[in-house]
Amino acid sequence: MSPQPERRQITGFSNPTVKYLRSLREKKHRKAAGKFLAEGLRLLTDARECGHLPEMLVMASGRGPHPLLDTLEREVLAAGGDVIETSPDILSKITGKANPQAVAGVFAEFDTSLAALNRGKAKIWLVAQALRDPGNLGTMLRTGDAVGAGGLILIDDCADPFSVEAVRASMGAIFTQHVAQARWEEFLPWLRSGEGQLVAASLRDAVPYRAAPYQTPCYILVGNESQGLPEEYEMACDLRVTMPMMGRADSLNAAVAGAVLAYEVLAALDS
Amino acid sequence: MSPQPERRQITGFSNPTVKYLRSLREKKHRKAAGKFLAEGLRLLTDARECGHLPEMLVMASGRGPHPLLDTLEREVLAAGGDVIETSPDILSKITGKANPQAVAGVFAEFDTSLAALNRGKAKIWLVAQALRDPGNLGTMLRTGDAVGAGGLILIDDCADPFSVEAVRASMGAIFTQHVAQARWEEFLPWLRSGEGQLVAASLRDAVPYRAAPYQTPCYILVGNESQGLPEEYEMACDLRVTMPMMGRADSLNAAVAGAVLAYEVLAALDS
Repeated sequence: MSPQPERRQITGFSNPTVKYLRSLREKKHRKAAGKFLAEGLRLLTDARECGHLPEMLVMASGRGPHPLLDTLEREVLAAGGDVIETSPDILSKITGKANPQAVAGVFAEFDTSLAALNRGKAKIWLVAQALRDPGNLGTMLRTGDAVGAGGLILIDDCADPFSVEAVRASMGAIFTQHVAQARWEEFLPWLRSGEGQLVAASLRDAVPYRAAPYQTPCYILVGNESQGLPEEYEMACDLRVTMPMMGRADSLNAAVAGAVLAYEVLAALDS
Repeated sequence: MSPQPERRQITGFSNPTVKYLRSLREKKHRKAAGKFLAEGLRLLTDARECGHLPEMLVMASGRGPHPLLDTLEREVLAAGGDVIETSPDILSKITGKANPQAVAGVFAEFDTSLAALNRGKAKIWLVAQALRDPGNLGTMLRTGDAVGAGGLILIDDCADPFSVEAVRASMGAIFTQHVAQARWEEFLPWLRSGEGQLVAASLRDAVPYRAAPYQTPCYILVGNESQGLPEEYEMACDLRVTMPMMGRADSLNAAVAGAVLAYEVLAALDS
């Protein structure tokens, strides 16, 4: 009989596994390894229920027993993954948080090609161009989950959707929303090769966002936090809509603009 | 004739003014001084146009001439304020940003008592309870400006609205939106002493947020990022509304929830 796979203990900061885990907080190391970190029992449970088990599960020692964590540990070991127990201090170094959640997991990054995207699966897709803030990116994933979107398509140079900050802000939606990454020059022909209305939140030549003629499937495009969308991109859209701006500001936070628009589209397509 | 007030040069990191400015990145020092930092020419220009001049203006040396900055400098000096020129390195230490904007200003904190709030001034007010993230707080200020809200009322222990992060995320709305801070026990009697419908984004005993019976003036209450609103607070509301949650998540980012609801209220009150 082969030995039962079991939990390993790690106690030193200089342990190679700890170094590897810490390295995943940096984009270049994530890309080299093709892995990313997600933390928290709730998030890992969401991931598991969506069919994603971590390859490596890291738990803080001294935690109380928890049935969901026990299940997770058993399944990770059964799938041939690693389960590691370490001190809360080391876990805090790994996640970069002073008070880390009691558990974190390492996952393989997903295929983010447009080709992997099943465009028939949803009526709403979110599209972000040059979105630089990982918190905004994660928030858009979370909003996408809430409005029943299929996923988030990241155009041009965006924040890394697999960064700890984006994964955290997504509140688990990184596992429910499809993420694709593409240059605008790839995205537009891909979009036009099938059905889809491209809608931009815009200030140029736009109609009011309430009761605009939204069509399904609807691709909702928001632009960079400080520059907005390039004019050329806006002009390629099928519909440009604008939200009231009653004060001095001429724009909303990118994730907020996407959400207000997405909820309007959801209501319009449902009615 | 008295000498013309003029710009001072500061070159050393250990200069007491630099130390003072850096200290304003910490809440306890802000509270002790009653001052806060805001950065960027656009933000400072917005502030000026709203009647707020910085007491101290700090500029990076080597910047090109700019008419708006020249105006600002002249007005600050005329009002008896300080104008300081320093190196981009020192400015970056002050603002905590690798690539700081070329200018920052020190402002006196505003009166955040409920008593100072002119409740007749607007039809919409945003209210946040135990909002912990300064980025969310600033984003709510920005949204408030966009929907024509009067301001943001912070209930219980929230992030500091005068933190560099909140001011930055507000994109200038810290100068257009009234900010008040109060405990729930103060807020509720204050609210009930005048007109106002208190509306919560809620999952409990709630009606759909679309076409709910909103009334003016409408106070839109959102809860803490991870806990939501205490049940007691929700029960004290005049109206509880819920947004569709089509996916696995049961909530939105707090600033997003506030914005989706605020835009719905704006549309309802206008129609």
